[in-house]
Amino acid sequence: MKSFRRLPQHIGIIPDGNRRWAQHKGMNKQDGYESGLRPGLEVYELCLELGIKELTFYGFTVDNTKRPSAQIRAFRKACVDAVEYLASKDADLLVVGNTQSPFFPKALLPYTERTRCGSGRIKVNFLANYGWNWDLNYAARNGTIGSSGNVVDGIASSDISRIDLIIRWGGGRRLSGFLPIQSVYADFYVVDEMWPDYCSAQFHKALEWYQDQDITLGG
Amino acid sequence: MKSFRRLPQHIGIIPDGNRRWAQHKGMNKQDGYESGLRPGLEVYELCLELGIKELTFYGFTVDNTKRPSAQIRAFRKACVDAVEYLASKDADLLVVGNTQSPFFPKALLPYTERTRCGSGRIKVNFLANYGWNWDLNYAARNGTIGSSGNVVDGIASSDISRIDLIIRWGGGRRLSGFLPIQSVYADFYVVDEMWPDYCSAQFHKALEWYQDQDITLGG
Repeated sequence: MKSFRRLPQHIGIIPDGNRRWAQHKGMNKQDGYESGLRPGLEVYELCLELGIKELTFYGFTVDNTKRPSAQIRAFRKACVDAVEYLASKDADLLVVGNTQSPFFPKALLPYTERTRCGSGRIKVNFLANYGWNWDLNYAARNGTIGSSGNVVDGIASSDISRIDLIIRWGGGRRLSGFLPIQSVYADFYVVDEMWPDYCSAQFHKALEWYQDQDITLGG
Repeated sequence: MKSFRRLPQHIGIIPDGNRRWAQHKGMNKQDGYESGLRPGLEVYELCLELGIKELTFYGFTVDNTKRPSAQIRAFRKACVDAVEYLASKDADLLVVGNTQSPFFPKALLPYTERTRCGSGRIKVNFLANYGWNWDLNYAARNGTIGSSGNVVDGIASSDISRIDLIIRWGGGRRLSGFLPIQSVYADFYVVDEMWPDYCSAQFHKALEWYQDQDITLGG
């Protein structure tokens, strides 16, 4: 296995490009999501091997649920399959998203509290029906903002820690609403290939790039 | 003048690399900031010509004020000089930052309410002694969060609109706490050259890249 001088503690994954990949293959857009499963599980296995402490996947968002229903069905199913697979392995699993909406997959409800699966070993967070605005307004909605005095302490994703490295597939150079608080100091690496075309060399290149970055946390 | 199919309405500028530039020149780190003035004014002139509606500069942050005092003096002076120059031109100026701290330059106090200078024509925002956490907690600190019900409406920077394109000089691929709310959907373009080595071709390349991006606002 490759070794690195310095590894991120927490990696965020934006697995973009499933629909464009399907179209290039002459398939329907919604048929791309299923091919996003293998990459996710390979990233998980690699992080486990490397001793990464926390891994967060951008599953789907409240914004995404405005898409055609065939796509919604497909990405919801892919997310449920991914989480259920991870639950059969070693992971401290947490699903974060708006459970008050019919778009939140009921099968994921058990994981909205952090759940030790197998022997744990790595925190894995999965965003499903997530919205950045919903996240930030979580405490305000529950009227608890005043007690802590800090907006950040009351966000819905407060059990997800600061992210060191975000890797986005599919060429887009934007966060698209991904965990704005945890991402304030994150280094952002873009892979031009689509997510279903994931290979471990892309991931290794991101880690090689990351180890040369100067970490200042804004200082 | 070059023309573009589609322009961003609001551009954010992260003018990084002043200290590294100075060191490469054999100067002291703090001597780089003065050379960051010309680039800022050239970007402003270019945006005015192109009809860009809003422009935000990342001046300095609360995090930055932990640096050696010679550097703090230098970047505070550069920010005051930049704002005072802009005030002598056409701009709807706004300075956003924590005015309750001695690091906030008193000379910038008049601009903490949006101020029409000359004939306006472009909104120019300048962050001085800005902190992302300070920004988010602005309303919570003032006990007004409950009235709007939305954390985002009460942030200190609420008069700064959503950003379409962020351009960062100096090679870093991170936001470093830059306006997390306004940046959620922003496209992020990185220039490897240091900010004092700014030239208009870099800016034009960023705009050329931007016009080919697919704008989805998370959808």
